[in-house]
Amino acid sequence: MRTVVWPSLSETQQDAVLERPAITEGANITAAVSQVIAQVREQGDAALVELTQKFDRVTPDSIRVSKSDMDAASERLSENMKQALEQAYANIAKFHKAQKPQPIKVETQPGVLCEQVTRPIQKVGLYIPGGSAPLPSTVLMLGVPAQIAGCQKVVLCSPPPIADEILYVAKLCNIDEVYNVGGGQAIAAMAYGTETVAKVDKIFGPGNAYVTEAKRQVSNDFRGAAIDMPAGPSEVLVIADETADPEFIAADLLSQAEHGPDSQVVLVTPSPVLADQVSDAVRSQLQQLSRADIAEKALASSLIVISESLTQAISISNYYGPEHLIVQTKNPRELLPLLDNAGSIFLGDWSPESAGDYASGTNHVLPTYGYTRTYSSLGLADFSKRMTVQELSAEGLQLLAPTVVTMAEAEGLDAHKRAVTIRVEKLLQRGEA
Amino acid sequence: MRTVVWPSLSETQQDAVLERPAITEGANITAAVSQVIAQVREQGDAALVELTQKFDRVTPDSIRVSKSDMDAASERLSENMKQALEQAYANIAKFHKAQKPQPIKVETQPGVLCEQVTRPIQKVGLYIPGGSAPLPSTVLMLGVPAQIAGCQKVVLCSPPPIADEILYVAKLCNIDEVYNVGGGQAIAAMAYGTETVAKVDKIFGPGNAYVTEAKRQVSNDFRGAAIDMPAGPSEVLVIADETADPEFIAADLLSQAEHGPDSQVVLVTPSPVLADQVSDAVRSQLQQLSRADIAEKALASSLIVISESLTQAISISNYYGPEHLIVQTKNPRELLPLLDNAGSIFLGDWSPESAGDYASGTNHVLPTYGYTRTYSSLGLADFSKRMTVQELSAEGLQLLAPTVVTMAEAEGLDAHKRAVTIRVEKLLQRGEA
Ligand SMILES: [Zn+2]
Ligand SMILES: [Zn+2]
Repeated sequence: MRTVVWPSLSETQQDAVLERPAITEGANITAAVSQVIAQVREQGDAALVELTQKFDRVTPDSIRVSKSDMDAASERLSENMKQALEQAYANIAKFHKAQKPQPIKVETQPGVLCEQVTRPIQKVGLYIPGGSAPLPSTVLMLGVPAQIAGCQKVVLCSPPPIADEILYVAKLCNIDEVYNVGGGQAIAAMAYGTETVAKVDKIFGPGNAYVTEAKRQVSNDFRGAAIDMPAGPSEVLVIADETADPEFIAADLLSQAEHGPDSQVVLVTPSPVLADQVSDAVRSQLQQLSRADIAEKALASSLIVISESLTQAISISNYYGPEHLIVQTKNPRELLPLLDNAGSIFLGDWSPESAGDYASGTNHVLPTYGYTRTYSSLGLADFSKRMTVQELSAEGLQLLAPTVVTMAEAEGLDAHKRAVTIRVEKLLQRGEA
Repeated sequence: MRTVVWPSLSETQQDAVLERPAITEGANITAAVSQVIAQVREQGDAALVELTQKFDRVTPDSIRVSKSDMDAASERLSENMKQALEQAYANIAKFHKAQKPQPIKVETQPGVLCEQVTRPIQKVGLYIPGGSAPLPSTVLMLGVPAQIAGCQKVVLCSPPPIADEILYVAKLCNIDEVYNVGGGQAIAAMAYGTETVAKVDKIFGPGNAYVTEAKRQVSNDFRGAAIDMPAGPSEVLVIADETADPEFIAADLLSQAEHGPDSQVVLVTPSPVLADQVSDAVRSQLQQLSRADIAEKALASSLIVISESLTQAISISNYYGPEHLIVQTKNPRELLPLLDNAGSIFLGDWSPESAGDYASGTNHVLPTYGYTRTYSSLGLADFSKRMTVQELSAEGLQLLAPTVVTMAEAEGLDAHKRAVTIRVEKLLQRGEA
């Protein structure tokens, strides 16, 4: 890990040190994805079958996973695994239920009632990537809020063969529409629909460069689908002082590093001693990991920043805006009011990132790549939309009329003014004004 | 207005009738905007001065509006106008204050505390279009929530000369950074910063095709800025039964029509008699409007749908998903639970759209073009972001450990597992487990 001493850097150097690597997606990915989307829109299911054979090199019995296959998956899983998934489900459900918004109702002035109501997004699509290991945790993070928000239709796509763990969590989340489709073709199918796959309003979930590009393309088409948030490499930033345990920090940094070679890993501490200890601990723990090669690549571009003070460490973190922010200091909760621009925050020695990744209850789908400045941790709000309502009484409208008329005149909008005056005149005629 | 009888149409015809016209932005707009953005990024303030001379044909004294100019604007305004703007400000502030979220804090299982905290987006940019008439209402709709959310920096750009009404509302909203810049160059300046204009995190506000394209381009660049929501032509759909006043409905339809020739105007009613009456009333009211030519163009593509029932009228509205939804029926509030996919809803005879456009308290920045299925009415949430927090006690981690370990094993993530086991082992060593 590279170590820098923050106060010794110029402002330009500081910027450069924290700058994220540019995501350079080749024009070939853009074109390849456009072609996949076009093919799915033209040929529907036939395209899905062909592209699945081509990219996943399997031919599933059917595009949709049958009920009996889902049941069989449950039976194959160990009790231990089921219990773990159920515990995680329960915690995530509890935290997301607590996010249910209260309806808002305010009389802004006499007879003028304004409300905000929330409705579930009707149809959502969840994408779960394939790969060497299954990702049941991602099914939980997408499926639980969709279920609690009350989305009427929830569709899940994943490249075949779909792991038993994924099918089991889908069942827990009451998702019975699961499709053996991955990649850009899955995103296209959910965005536009095919004979078998239902078109959805919004698509959630992580994926490789092709999936990300497909999500971008369908979200730029108003006949396509909305998406959850922009994607980027995963990140952790740890703020620690001299009271922190270097072994714990090393384990947390390595958790992030093993996600992928492009993972961003940063430690900021005012303690040079701790910095050295963490550096050593990372080196020794690294050797014991099955994914040591991946973690090593991520560590090559990782960073330890020695700050002047804890206050400066917080400023650096707020400026960087990490996806995951771990705080291992003497009194981490005291720092919370000062922390900003983070996806999810982990306070204290006993809150490793992996707790939040899996089972504490918070969502692991988080803004990254600096989007923490404007985007939120995935939550119930992302599976819902807010509508406003107003209801004026005759008296309410009369009271508000002069304001609306004056402003409509200023904006040169005659009919807007008339929509008010015609009503007030009617009240005058009726002798109600 | 074209009238169709819904049950007599085939499903394909029904789809076609409600289909929105495609927004076709020429490649020349894309290229022109790219060039403006590049010029602002390269030349900064000099580009703003040059482009303002070129497009707005004025040379303001300075890019930033001076405090004395802002004060002078207030003094020139009539008391009547100031009162109207202040009343609107008060109502909008009251409704948006009511949207302040409560922090959420849940112990999902013993010793596992999960929280959701909300923070203002630090730096926001508001764009207010120019044109023949000023738009102080848009300043209110963007400036009030920015102020209530607590955004630290709020910047406003508008093409010069900026109307007194706009400067007055900016002052009401405590915005003192107002810039004499419009068009794509304003969006570029706020997204990337210049010597004078501060870079912001997120840009809000309506605009012409160039502004919309510039917002799209800067939001696709992670070094640019996030934006509020996709833009599209403004829309109204009125649901009415035979008890509705045709004159009121005609006035509301015309309010929408006068916004622009691409405005979408729809009436859905089970009453053919009302349909005829509204049609006649629109024709006669149209003649009295100063913007009759614009409204007439919008009306050419407007639509009256005769439905079988009120229930069917609601289904049609939910399917179309209008920006503004006006309900003029016998018991409009009874229908509210059934209404979905609308930006803002206006209940009853005394709730014209212009009340919400200006002063009832709701926000007039709304999703349109079918985005009501997934996007929300602009509100406090759009000027904030949600972060999650977790804090586990030593006991909490021990209880959760088996779940995390089992899931990390299933996902093949060694270091994730280790981050937990290393902590549990430490507790065992300490004799605390
Ligand atoms: Zn992780
Ligand atoms: Zn309007």
